[in-house]
Order: sequence, then C-alpha cells, then structure tokens
Amino acid sequence: MKPIRRDDLVYLDNNATTRADPAVVAAMLPHFSERFGNPSSAHGFGAGAREAVRFARRQVQALLGAASEQEILFTSGGSESDNTAILSAVDVMAGRNEVIVSAVEHPAVLSLCHRLEARRGIRVHRIPVDTLGQLDLDAYRAVLSERTAVVSIMWANNETGTIFPIDDLAEMAKKVGALFHTDAVQAAGRLPLDLKATAIDMLSLSAHKLHGPKGVGMLYVRHGCPFSPLIYGGRQERARRAGTENVPGIVGLGQAAEIARISVSEDMPRITRLRDRLERGLLQSIGGALINGDPSRRLANTSNIAFEGIESEAFVALLDRQGIACSSGSACSSGSMEPSHVLKAMMVPQDFLPGAVRFSLSRDNNEADIDRLLSVAPDVVASLRGQTFEASVLQPAGLAHV
Amino acid sequence: MKPIRRDDLVYLDNNATTRADPAVVAAMLPHFSERFGNPSSAHGFGAGAREAVRFARRQVQALLGAASEQEILFTSGGSESDNTAILSAVDVMAGRNEVIVSAVEHPAVLSLCHRLEARRGIRVHRIPVDTLGQLDLDAYRAVLSERTAVVSIMWANNETGTIFPIDDLAEMAKKVGALFHTDAVQAAGRLPLDLKATAIDMLSLSAHKLHGPKGVGMLYVRHGCPFSPLIYGGRQERARRAGTENVPGIVGLGQAAEIARISVSEDMPRITRLRDRLERGLLQSIGGALINGDPSRRLANTSNIAFEGIESEAFVALLDRQGIACSSGSACSSGSMEPSHVLKAMMVPQDFLPGAVRFSLSRDNNEADIDRLLSVAPDVVASLRGQTFEASVLQPAGLAHV
Ligand SMILES: Cc1ncc(COP(=O)(O)O)c(C=O)c1O
Ligand SMILES: Cc1ncc(COP(=O)(O)O)c(C=O)c1O
Repeated sequence: MKPIRRDDLVYLDNNATTRADPAVVAAMLPHFSERFGNPSSAHGFGAGAREAVRFARRQVQALLGAASEQEILFTSGGSESDNTAILSAVDVMAGRNEVIVSAVEHPAVLSLCHRLEARRGIRVHRIPVDTLGQLDLDAYRAVLSERTAVVSIMWANNETGTIFPIDDLAEMAKKVGALFHTDAVQAAGRLPLDLKATAIDMLSLSAHKLHGPKGVGMLYVRHGCPFSPLIYGGRQERARRAGTENVPGIVGLGQAAEIARISVSEDMPRITRLRDRLERGLLQSIGGALINGDPSRRLANTSNIAFEGIESEAFVALLDRQGIACSSGSACSSGSMEPSHVLKAMMVPQDFLPGAVRFSLSRDNNEADIDRLLSVAPDVVASLRGQTFEASVLQPAGLAHV
Repeated sequence: MKPIRRDDLVYLDNNATTRADPAVVAAMLPHFSERFGNPSSAHGFGAGAREAVRFARRQVQALLGAASEQEILFTSGGSESDNTAILSAVDVMAGRNEVIVSAVEHPAVLSLCHRLEARRGIRVHRIPVDTLGQLDLDAYRAVLSERTAVVSIMWANNETGTIFPIDDLAEMAKKVGALFHTDAVQAAGRLPLDLKATAIDMLSLSAHKLHGPKGVGMLYVRHGCPFSPLIYGGRQERARRAGTENVPGIVGLGQAAEIARISVSEDMPRITRLRDRLERGLLQSIGGALINGDPSRRLANTSNIAFEGIESEAFVALLDRQGIACSSGSACSSGSMEPSHVLKAMMVPQDFLPGAVRFSLSRDNNEADIDRLLSVAPDVVASLRGQTFEASVLQPAGLAHV
C-alpha cells in the first residue's frame, strides 16, 4: 500500500475535536511570549492581559446573545463547565435534592450524576428518548417538581446530532422554580443561539469543538442565577472560578466565537449538503445501513450510520489505514468496547448496534473528502461482512500520517 | 515624558507569571491546526495526540523525579491542582476530619479551607510562621494527629520566597498516617526536586510560573495514594480528571519542564547574583528598607522589600510608568487594598507593612534590568515619601507599552 500523504487525510471526526482555525492561533500567539502578563497584575503587562480577556468575553457574549459580558465565565473546557453548573445548582438550591437529565447526556453530566446519587443522596431522574433520540416530554413533565434543583439537558447530542427543544424545556423548568442548565458543547457554532430570549440559566461550551484551542471552555451564568464555585482561590472571574486566566486560550475561544457567529449561517448550508451527499452515497452503495438520529431536528454536520453485521471499531481502523478519520460512538467512550449508551437508549436494533459509525463534518471539509469516503467505505463494509480482510489491518493505528 | 519602547520594558514580576519560552511555544504550535486530534480518538489523529501527551508526561516526570509517569495528572493550573488535592484527601480519608495548612498558603489553599470549615465541618489548623516566615515546627507537631486527613504546606512562598523544610514536614505527616500535599507552584523550576526520595503524596505545579503556557498545570499523585476526582466525565487521565486533554498546553508544560530541569542548576546562580545586586543596590540607596523572608532559605529569584512610609500600590504604579513591572503583595490579592496575609503573619512592623514590594526575577532578566530599577527606585521612594509627585501618575496603568 502506498503511504498516505498528509494532504490526502480526510478528517470526519469534528464532534470529537476540530482543527483550530489558523486565525484563532494567530490571535493567541502574541499572548504567550509578548503580551504575557497576568490579568491580576497592576502594571501594564497586567492591563494588556485584562484587556485581551475582556475583548474575548465580548466576542463570546455576542455568539451566545447573552445580555451581559459578566454572564460569561471562562473555564478549562466542557467537562469542567458541566460539573460546575450541576454542582453549583445542587449547592445553592437548598431544600431541593433532585436532578433531571436526559438518558443521552455526555459522561461529563452522567458520571457526575452517578456520583451525586452515590455520595450526596441526590435523586437523579434520567428522561428516556424515543427511537429518533427525541426526549419523552411526558416523562419530563412527570418528574419536574418543587424538589427539582436543576435540569441539565444537552442542546444537541454528540453522537447523533439530535437537537432537543431547549427553549421549551427551560420554560417548563422555570415554572417549578428549578434551575436549567444546557450542555451546548456540540450546538455552539452549529446552531444560532440567542440566550436573552430564553429561560436558560446556565450553558456550557468547549472551545475545541468550534475550531478553538483545547483546554478552554465557558460557562454562561445568567445574571441573578445563584452560583457556587467549583475551584476556590484568587478572585478571578468575579470570584466564580479561581486560577490565573488562560489568556491565550481565552483569546482563542473569543476569536473562534467571532468566526463561528458568522459561520453558523454562512457555512452550515454547505455542510448540510456535504452531509446529505455523504448519507445518500453510503445508503445507495451499502445495504443494511441505518441512520440514527432525528432527521428533522439534527445538527447539520453529524451523521450516525449503523451498518448491519460489522463492528464499528474495525471499520474505523480500516478507514484510518486509508487516511480517513471517523469514530465509533463518542471519542470519550472509545477505548472501551461497550455499546454507546445513546444508541442503546434509542433502542437501535441489536444487529445494528455494534456497527454504528459517526461521521462529523466541519467547514474544513469539502466534496472531495466525501468522495474519498464514498470510494472506500463500501469495500470496507463488504470486506468486514465477508471477513476477507487481512488481520493485519486491524492493528492499532500508527503515527504514520499525523 | 517620552514613550517607553517595548525593548525598554523590565519585567520583575515572574512570581505572578512568566514569559512563555519561545521554545515552548514552538513545541505547542503544531498541535493547534496540524496534529490536532483528540487523544481519545481511535484513528491516527488521536494516536498522534496521545503520543504527544505521553511524551510531555515523561518530561514532567523527569523534572519532578517521580517514580512513574502515571503519577503525573494534568490539570488546568495550580489552583485546580490545589483544590483537587485537598478535596480528594478529605474525601478519601474517611474518619479523619482535620486539615493542617500554614498561615501563609496561597488563596487557592486558604479559601478552599475556609469553605471546608464553613460547609463541610472540617477543622482547619493554620500553622503560624516566625518573623522570617519560617514555620513554627512545634505548633505543627502539636496538631498532627490521627484526626489529620491531609497536610497542605507550600514548598516555597510566592510573596517572600521563603522555603519550607518539606521533606521533614512530609515525614512527620506520614508518621500519623495523614496524606501530605505541597503547593510547589513557585518551587518547580527554581529548586531541584526529587520526589522519589520524599514522603510527599501530592504536589501541585502551574505551567505559567516556569515559562510554560497559562491554563495548564499538574498534580503529582504518588502511586498508591488514594484519590477522588474533582471533575467527572470521560475517563481521561486514568479516570482521575475528565475533559479532553489540553494537548498543546500539556506539550508546552512538558517542554517547559524539560528546559526547567536544566535551568534549575544552570541559571539559578546567575539569578541569585542579580537578586543580590538588586537588594544591595536598593538597600544602599534607600533608607528605611527591610527585606522580608528567610535569607538563608529563600528562592533565588524572589525579593520582598518593604519601604517605610510609602504605599506599595503607588510605588508599583510609578515604576510601571517607567516601564518596570513589579508587584505589591501577590498578584492574586492585588486590586484589593488589604495588606498581605503573609506579611501580617510574619509580624512585619506596621510602618513597613503598606510599603512591601515584590521583585521576582527569571532567566529572562539581566544586569541592565537591575540597573534600570536601581536608577529609578530611589527617586520614586523619595518622591512618595515627600509627596512631591503629581497626582496623575497614580492613574491606573494604560496599555501604552504592551
Ligand atoms: C503558591 C501558589 N499557589 C497556587 C497558585 C495558583 O496558580 P494558578 O493561578 O496558575 O491557578 C499560585 C499563583 O497564582 C501560587 O503562587
Ligand atoms: C456534548 C458534550 N459535552 C461535554 C463534552 C466535554 O467537553 P471537554 O472534553 O472539552 O471537556 C463533550 C466532548 O467531549 C461533548 O460532546
């Protein structure tokens, strides 16, 4: 097999992480070794850093349609934001000891909930979804009560792209006096957001999912929402999150947000067309394939397709050999061979469950990427079904091409 | 006044933050937009990221003299590391509900302890220090007991540079079965460390204090030390810290650690000479000045000098106008006008307390920097004492020179 050149690589795993936009990196760069001050410092180096953080805060505010820049709290990523929001709510909502989540949340929500049940005596309600991955609204209504401290339901699912009716869910939570948090890690930069117009109290975002850097995220905390920090220490972020600010990371998130605000309307139509081309192509050329997710309310960039009679890990490994990156389940649970909790909750048929593959696109993709995939995937599925491939192709992926 | 050129700037606030080494930034750069994979991903992009994180882990292991790379847990910074260590210890040491700290810890330790007292019924012992800032060992011995869950005492103080006898303190904690954590945020890269040879269970470090990037840190957790995470979610960092790894940041910390390991022995003698030149110069030219800290056990780079009859905030602002950056107290508590809790604990005389200034050096400084300071500081102190300066110089620092 001839070696794969870097230019040939096709990255279709943008729900795991995205390539930082070169404009983002360019914005960050001066903050490492030139404008490197600590925002808490009283001198000019500190003032420069403070100014940069404030500028980024406004860029993120604009992406979210938040009423005030003070509602933007920078964190180290989506997981920290999710943990902070839920722990804070449980802490400040004295007398309420129930939490409501969907059954298909990210582990950053579900593992924390497990811990809250086991160690803090919190009762957690996990709302089921239907076969399209849509929330059971009756079940949601049935458990909302004055015992609910917080509802945490994601805006869009990382595995299937299914979008939940967050505005309505937040309104319903508000009626019983519960706080409402949404994990918008996959929605931000892919759906237009306007938080002013909603009843959402808290929202999580992670920069590396929208062409920003890894290691920085954000928690939106609505003005007036009671709050309790996760990390104590210095009085950074209005005493809501201690630690010297990640100035370059925050600047990168700000720049990514600025670009995403435009990209949401400018790039999404093209990305939708690419995704549709991908799905049409695969379904036409491969029998026994099933699209998971809600076709009418789904992120434009995400396609979860289950191929009957194969194992997705093998599919991902064989595609990797061809220089095409996609994923089986979500990146976070890969490495473990358990089937996805999201697809299990959607009652994906047993014959299809092990063969579910996620293709997730971004503005970095083009038609040639899709065509490359389409030229390779049918043979890969056929060989996996026929077991005609050589065992060697299932070796762990090497470093050859990155 | 003629504008200050960037080349003329003198940065003497390296305990607040340091300039990222250009070699550090160069190492990080490919991980934003080229080798940008998520380490949890099964394809080649993921493998490349995993490999980079592993390499950095070994670089940090080498700096610390840790027995295994698995003892290195990457975090978002010193504050998160401190919070994680103490909360974990309180959690896992069932039946022990006392915590011992020094009175001069960083707010990342002290604020958390305050919270533990107020909300978790933990009893916190704060060990006093003497006028040199050295720990009262008798007081420490007196409170160590089988009720002690964890001792958290810093290796070196951020305001005065005073170094504590951490090896001995850790041995004493071990005798009563308590865990021992040390905040080495200011010590790492400035003192040789060899954790294998100590009884330390956990140690915190922050990249941006040793010429690495902001927003990344590390918690050393000795093999076998019981542990409970702060952030739940994906199984990153051996399920001890959830969240997509900050690959560029971790790579930067690794590179910074690699350089620091050599710099500790190669640069510290020169930095010591610069610091001595600074102190000699200031004490010779300015009367009523007092060095705070332990002259015999002090970080080479740190000088805390109190000038009688002035306010340090005014001094810092006037020096800033001359393009020289230093600090009053620690950066984290600046902005508030309260005198430093560290200097108060050291019983610094009332007449000197408001005038304490911290100069902190790094390998980026040279003799010319010190000479610039020495050419300016005596006049500034004189003018502040005589109140002959114009009020305008006390305006907040602008962005003119960064
Ligand atoms: C001794 C000490 N501990 C902890 C910290 C907190 O580190 P970070 O601000 O990177 O979270 C600092 C610096 O601010 C420090 O000097
Ligand atoms: C929906 C969702 N929430 C939270 C996270 C966690 O974000 P991070 O890994 O940046 O902490 C992710 C991604 O891994 C995600 O897809």
